[in-house]
Amino acid sequence: MVQAITLPRNEGGIKAAIAALSEAFGDRLQTGQALREQHGHTTTWIDNQAPDAVVFPTSSEEVSDIVKICAEFGVPIIPFGTGTSLEGHVNAPAGGICVDMMRMDQIVAVHAEDLDVVVQPGVTREQLNTYLRDQGLFFPIDPGANASLGGMVATRASGTNAVRYGTMKDNVLSLEAVMADGSIIRTASRAKKSSAGYDMTRLLVGSEGTLGLITEITLKLQGIPEAIRSARCSFRSVDEACQAVMMTIQYGIPVARIELLDEMSVRAANQHSGLDLPEVPLLLLEFHGSDAGVVEQSDTFAQIAEEFGGFDIAATSTPEERNKLWQARHDMYWASLGLRPGAKGISTDVCVPISKLADCVSAARSKAEEMGLIAPIVGHVGDGNFHALLLIDMESAEEREKADTYVSWLNDLAISMEGTCTGEHGIGQGKRPYLVRELGETTRFMAAVKAALDPDNILNPGKILIDG
Amino acid sequence: MVQAITLPRNEGGIKAAIAALSEAFGDRLQTGQALREQHGHTTTWIDNQAPDAVVFPTSSEEVSDIVKICAEFGVPIIPFGTGTSLEGHVNAPAGGICVDMMRMDQIVAVHAEDLDVVVQPGVTREQLNTYLRDQGLFFPIDPGANASLGGMVATRASGTNAVRYGTMKDNVLSLEAVMADGSIIRTASRAKKSSAGYDMTRLLVGSEGTLGLITEITLKLQGIPEAIRSARCSFRSVDEACQAVMMTIQYGIPVARIELLDEMSVRAANQHSGLDLPEVPLLLLEFHGSDAGVVEQSDTFAQIAEEFGGFDIAATSTPEERNKLWQARHDMYWASLGLRPGAKGISTDVCVPISKLADCVSAARSKAEEMGLIAPIVGHVGDGNFHALLLIDMESAEEREKADTYVSWLNDLAISMEGTCTGEHGIGQGKRPYLVRELGETTRFMAAVKAALDPDNILNPGKILIDG
Repeated sequence: MVQAITLPRNEGGIKAAIAALSEAFGDRLQTGQALREQHGHTTTWIDNQAPDAVVFPTSSEEVSDIVKICAEFGVPIIPFGTGTSLEGHVNAPAGGICVDMMRMDQIVAVHAEDLDVVVQPGVTREQLNTYLRDQGLFFPIDPGANASLGGMVATRASGTNAVRYGTMKDNVLSLEAVMADGSIIRTASRAKKSSAGYDMTRLLVGSEGTLGLITEITLKLQGIPEAIRSARCSFRSVDEACQAVMMTIQYGIPVARIELLDEMSVRAANQHSGLDLPEVPLLLLEFHGSDAGVVEQSDTFAQIAEEFGGFDIAATSTPEERNKLWQARHDMYWASLGLRPGAKGISTDVCVPISKLADCVSAARSKAEEMGLIAPIVGHVGDGNFHALLLIDMESAEEREKADTYVSWLNDLAISMEGTCTGEHGIGQGKRPYLVRELGETTRFMAAVKAALDPDNILNPGKILIDG
Repeated sequence: MVQAITLPRNEGGIKAAIAALSEAFGDRLQTGQALREQHGHTTTWIDNQAPDAVVFPTSSEEVSDIVKICAEFGVPIIPFGTGTSLEGHVNAPAGGICVDMMRMDQIVAVHAEDLDVVVQPGVTREQLNTYLRDQGLFFPIDPGANASLGGMVATRASGTNAVRYGTMKDNVLSLEAVMADGSIIRTASRAKKSSAGYDMTRLLVGSEGTLGLITEITLKLQGIPEAIRSARCSFRSVDEACQAVMMTIQYGIPVARIELLDEMSVRAANQHSGLDLPEVPLLLLEFHGSDAGVVEQSDTFAQIAEEFGGFDIAATSTPEERNKLWQARHDMYWASLGLRPGAKGISTDVCVPISKLADCVSAARSKAEEMGLIAPIVGHVGDGNFHALLLIDMESAEEREKADTYVSWLNDLAISMEGTCTGEHGIGQGKRPYLVRELGETTRFMAAVKAALDPDNILNPGKILIDG
């Protein structure tokens, strides 16, 4: 069981920082318990560690002011978006000040000709896409939750259509960030590519608030495709489904999404979303392109799927049917919880080379059965990334212990298969030991970078690095 | 005129390091003048600054040994590939040891199912693609020169088909590198995506040998497309050509290449390659996809081009015709030199948001005319990146001065247009002042990262950062 770590508190500094911030921000600095606990809470199994205060800036300059005050008093700063991270990223193990970025929610500029947009970090994914729709543009990264874009940058988020559009690392052109001394920097120009020095953009993407606070984001956009087509296909085994995925990717079909639901997940979806899918492993796909192109793509996929024993293949370009299927996919977290009401869902996040995917998923299923764990599996399988959602009675010490054993075993298995313990959720507090198991001495150089950019360790301490 | 900078030499250390390396490497440590000068020479206008010795390792462990010896004596280390960099990247302003990586030329593993390959840094782009051809795979990044893949990583190279396949930053999955203390690290797993801590892969990509020596590279591969089709189209003005490019990108046509040749470049190509293209601005394109898909793409492009006054549109899927056109494009550097025999070509490398491209190219042409400079322009215009090749008599101080004025003016223009001074060539020695103009205080944090990872500044000193 991953315990929340606790770090020494700087009581005097925290008190002084709160006083200074209170003077500067008035009632935009809050210390009520409920609000603080809400800001120390994410959908994680790690205990809530509330910050000492929450402050709500509305500009980069105000974020800089906050950081300068906290730096002066040596007080931790924890940036907060929608609180949908999964590994205790917003916990406050040494207390400190939570910086709620959600009032920085302006879409600053849309450059339709350049296919980019400049946003503040509190803009959510759905807010942005609603705003863009009239212009025929969209931002493709979709982690499921309606996360803030700042949070998505910070955790290097991805999701269902990363197989085609990449992750946040591929879709951020430039960042404005406030560094540990309060400096406001811009990491890159708005040019589509650059060789101008170290890639500070990518260094901040995925840094989980430990190297700087993201205050403005320039994102790449895509044109809304002329046609979108979805398909589904059932398989007798996870192995056959994974073989079909591998061949689809190798064949170069530019699938926009290719998602696996194992048998248990399909059962959960049927119950939750009123579907009547065959209760066997299922692939859900989406194709983006021209009218003719998407039909060609889905036909080619169907041929491949049949080779691997796929059946009950259905494809549609009708929005209603498409949305129904994808809504069911999006609701999988809630649907899975329905398999064991009252249980807490603990999500694994391994990602392996696609040639190892079938073995890894099969082993993950067998191990869960062997340990008596209920653990439906869904996966962004085009990337080799899947989630087993362990349904755990958190009141039971034995079950928590089992869950921990399983998570540890699966992370180690993925690492032994040249994979990673986290495809998209990040390290936070929870995965810090696994990062060391995965990358060994490389973490020492990560720590050197952290120490160079945040020498007093005030930016989201206790995250990513064991000694961070 | 960019002068080669000179840094203080550690004579005693260099002597001691050469003695130790000579003992360890025998005749794989060389000090002959011609060889040293060749290793301090790139296709740059910056003066040759030869290293004191050149060593030829054959393994990561040997690279580690070299770094440890140089670290012990505080001696600069300059990694070397094919010597095709353009901004004095391999100059030795403080002397030191050049590490020629070209004997590390093994293709370590091809994972066809995962669409990735593991190579040593001395493998060249063409060597890799020749090796892969039988397996129906290719590595798409094509900077023109038959560069080493290690060098391409180090300079964050790209080239003609970055518009579809991205740059080196998008195509490296993982790196093995030797750090300044001789540690050998692996930056990431072989998983297709990851949120496992700081992105040390992207930090090393584009770091130009200043943060670590790249000793092994895991690259993403692509399946060779079922069909490849090329097209060309002439325009009455650069402005109309750029408008057509912008619309093509906005329309979401997944062009694999879209290259602009201005009027002067077309004239050079006609002369050099025996073509009879209309001597007006030209777009060259390539489309990758299915048989039907590439025809659909090129037809859609043709419609767009006609809207913007494009004429003499020709498309072909025949390899012979296609290769002839693209060979002409690849030979542009030599063709352009033919416009002024005996002159040296000095290449600019700005990259701007595509909405600014027409203005930037037009201004670049007008300014060259106004200054009496011969400067044909070619561009990877889908990315907003173009090169004006200044043809300069290097014996003339006045011309050198003019070239410097022009380069400086164009870099500043691009920066003022939210662009970058370097789309793909990198900073090296030559562009260090422009990096500061472009990113300001951000360079201070780059310097902090450099100091953290290479505290004694032994890794390729005098590159990227003014005080580096």
